[in-house]
Amino acid sequence: MQYQFSDKVKNITGSATREIFKLLVRPEIISFAGGLPATECLPKEDIAAITAEILSSNEAIGALQYGSTEGFKIYLEQVINFVLGTGVKVDSFDNILTLSGGQQGIDLMSKAFLNKGDTVLVEDPTYLAALQIFATYEANIVGIKSNKDGLDLDDLTQKIKKHKPKFLYVVPTFSNPTGKTYSEEIRRGIAKITLENNVMVLEDDPYSKLRFSGKEINALKTFEVADNIVYITSFSKILAPGLRIGAAIGNKDVIRKMAIGKQGADVSSAHLSQLITAKYLSKGLLVPNIEKSIPIYKQRKDAMIAAIEKHMPSEYKYENPDGGLFVWGKLDAKIDVATLLPKAVEKNVAFIQGTVFYAGGKNENTLRLNYSNASIDKIETGIKALSEVFKQELTRK
Amino acid sequence: MQYQFSDKVKNITGSATREIFKLLVRPEIISFAGGLPATECLPKEDIAAITAEILSSNEAIGALQYGSTEGFKIYLEQVINFVLGTGVKVDSFDNILTLSGGQQGIDLMSKAFLNKGDTVLVEDPTYLAALQIFATYEANIVGIKSNKDGLDLDDLTQKIKKHKPKFLYVVPTFSNPTGKTYSEEIRRGIAKITLENNVMVLEDDPYSKLRFSGKEINALKTFEVADNIVYITSFSKILAPGLRIGAAIGNKDVIRKMAIGKQGADVSSAHLSQLITAKYLSKGLLVPNIEKSIPIYKQRKDAMIAAIEKHMPSEYKYENPDGGLFVWGKLDAKIDVATLLPKAVEKNVAFIQGTVFYAGGKNENTLRLNYSNASIDKIETGIKALSEVFKQELTRK
Repeated sequence: MQYQFSDKVKNITGSATREIFKLLVRPEIISFAGGLPATECLPKEDIAAITAEILSSNEAIGALQYGSTEGFKIYLEQVINFVLGTGVKVDSFDNILTLSGGQQGIDLMSKAFLNKGDTVLVEDPTYLAALQIFATYEANIVGIKSNKDGLDLDDLTQKIKKHKPKFLYVVPTFSNPTGKTYSEEIRRGIAKITLENNVMVLEDDPYSKLRFSGKEINALKTFEVADNIVYITSFSKILAPGLRIGAAIGNKDVIRKMAIGKQGADVSSAHLSQLITAKYLSKGLLVPNIEKSIPIYKQRKDAMIAAIEKHMPSEYKYENPDGGLFVWGKLDAKIDVATLLPKAVEKNVAFIQGTVFYAGGKNENTLRLNYSNASIDKIETGIKALSEVFKQELTRK
Repeated sequence: MQYQFSDKVKNITGSATREIFKLLVRPEIISFAGGLPATECLPKEDIAAITAEILSSNEAIGALQYGSTEGFKIYLEQVINFVLGTGVKVDSFDNILTLSGGQQGIDLMSKAFLNKGDTVLVEDPTYLAALQIFATYEANIVGIKSNKDGLDLDDLTQKIKKHKPKFLYVVPTFSNPTGKTYSEEIRRGIAKITLENNVMVLEDDPYSKLRFSGKEINALKTFEVADNIVYITSFSKILAPGLRIGAAIGNKDVIRKMAIGKQGADVSSAHLSQLITAKYLSKGLLVPNIEKSIPIYKQRKDAMIAAIEKHMPSEYKYENPDGGLFVWGKLDAKIDVATLLPKAVEKNVAFIQGTVFYAGGKNENTLRLNYSNASIDKIETGIKALSEVFKQELTRK
C-alpha cells in the first residue's frame, strides 16, 4: 500500500516535544526540556475525594452518559467566575466553550478561520505546538519582532498591512518560551491595531496565575473594544494537565464555529474532567493550591537563576521571569545548541533548543530551560553539567 | 468586527444531532432521535470503585500529570486484547493510537489524508457526524449504493475508478443509521477492491459487541491483505460515552501521522478515562457488562418492532437489526418526514429524518429510530404517537 498523505501532515514527521517526552523516561535524566507542572502541586487527595463524591451522587450519570459539546453548565459557571481574576467578563454561555486542554483552542481557532495559505502572525519566538498546528492548517506563519515589553508594534502594523493575516497568536503573560509579559501599553496597542485592521487575536493564557513578582496585569482581551479577541484559559498548569481541560471565550459567532469544529473533533470534553474541575473550583480549592504552588516555583526559578550565575560562562545571557515555567537564554557565540543536546544528555541533562520556537527557525544559539519539574538539588546539578558542556564548546571554538 | 471564517466551517451552521440534544432536555419527550446507551448499562458503581483505586495509588500521578499522545501502555494493552474479539491482531504499540472517543479517529484520518477537494466514499446512508467532519475538510463526499448485505461492489468499483478517492468510510457492523451488517463476501470484496485500487478504508466499529442474534463476524480489517484498513474501536456504547475513549489501529506510518494530528488537537486523551478503561478491562468487567446490556437492548428493540407492527401504517417499512442501537425505516409515500418532526414533538416523541445521513441528501421519506435509551413502556407509547402523526399525514395526502 502506497500512502498518499495530505499536504497537512506530509512534511511533519515528529515534534521536538514528543522526542523530549521520550528522554524523560530515563530516571537519571535531569530534564529542563519539558513544561510539566511540579508533581508536588498536583492535588491528588482533593481530586480523589471530589471524584468519589461525583461518582457516588446523581452526577455519576452525567459523568458517564453523552453530553453537550459546549460543556457542563456547572463547569462553565466556575470558569466564568475564574477568568474574572484576569479581568475577563463573560456575558453569556454563548460566549464560552469547554476545551479538551487549552491547546484544543488553538486547533479549533485554526479550523474556524484558516484556509490554506492564510497568514497567522506570531511573536518570534512562540509556543512550538502552536507553530505545528498552524502548519497542519497549511498556514503562512509570519513572526513578529519583539522586545522586552512585548510585540514590536511597528513590525506588527507593517506585517498586518503586508500579509492581511486572519489572526495573531500570542501568549502575553509569562510567554512560552521566553517567560516575557507584555506591558499594558503594548496590550492596548495590540488591541487597537488589530481591531483597526480587522484582524482576530488568539490570546493563550495558561500561565498568568503563576506570578512570583511584579504587578498583576489584566488579560489582553480586557483591552479590546470590539469582539476580536478569543481568550483561552487552561487548568493544566494550575490544577492537573492529565484532566485535559480548558475553555475558550469570545464572540458568540466565533465560539459557535469553534463548537462546530469541536463536535467533529471529540463530541465533548471528558465529563469527569469537567465535573472534577467544577467541584474543585466551587469548593474554593484552586486559589489555595495556586498559593501553595507559587513559592515552590519561585524557589526553583531562583535556584536556576543562582546556578546560572554561579556556573554558566559569561557568554550565556538569560531573562529572569516574573512567573511561569521557563528561563529563556542564549549563548553569545556562533554555536548551534542543538548539536550540544546529545553531549548534555550524556551528562544526564536535557534542554530544548530555541530554534524550534521561531516561525522561520534560525536563532540556533537560543535555548529554553524549564525549572518547574526538578528539585532544587537537581537544578543545581543540572545547570552545572550543562554549563560544562557549553564551556567545553566555547573553548573548542 | 467582521469575521472571515474559513471555507471549512463557513457554511456549517449547526447539526441535526446538536439540535436533537436540545430536544432531549424536556423530560416529557420520548426521544428516538439520539444514540445514547441505556443509562442502566453505565456501570457507575464499578467505575466509582476503580477510580478510587487509581486515585489512591501510585497511578494518581499518571492520571494527573502530562503523558504521551499515543496513550498509556496499560490502556493500549487492554485494547489490543479486546479487539482480538473481532479478529483484529495488533503487532506492536506502533500500530495503535488512543482516541478521545471513536469519533476523533474520523477527524484524525481526515487530517492525515484529505486535501481540499479529495474524494471520500461513504455508504449511502452513513453516520451523519462523519459527513460533517468530511465537510470541514472540504472533501468531495460520494455515496455508494448499498443493498441488504452491504455495499454494492459494482458501484464501489465504478466510483473508485471515477473519483480516485483517498478513502472509503464504512460502519460494517450494525451500521448507523441502518443497523445493517455487511456479509463476509462483501467484506472480502471491499478489502480486495480497495487494495487493488490503492484506496484506504476507515472501518468504524462502535456497535459490533451489541449483537442479539445472528452469527458473529470478524471485522472488515481482518480481511485485508496489506495495510490499507484503519480500524476504530470505541468504548462509548459498551462502557460509558462520557469517558470519551477509543482507539485507532492501522499501519504504523498511518498511525504516526494520526498521532501528529492528535498532538495538535488535544495532546493526549483524558488520563483518568484511559486508566479507568484499562482497569475495567483488566478486571474482566467488560464482558459481563456487555452480557448484561444485550438483553436490555434486545428487549427494547423487540418492543419497538412489536409496536411498529401493531401501530404503524402499512406504508411504513423497516429493517429488523441483529444488533446495535437503531431501526431504520421509510414511509412508502411522497412525504418529507422532516416536516412531521414538529408535529411529533407536539405529541412528545422525537425521531431523526433519514435525509441527513445521505451524502447527497434527498430520501426525505426515510427515518432513524433509536431504541436503546427508552423504556419498554415509552417505546410503545412513542411509536403509537408517531404512527398517529404518520397516519394523519397519509390520510391528508
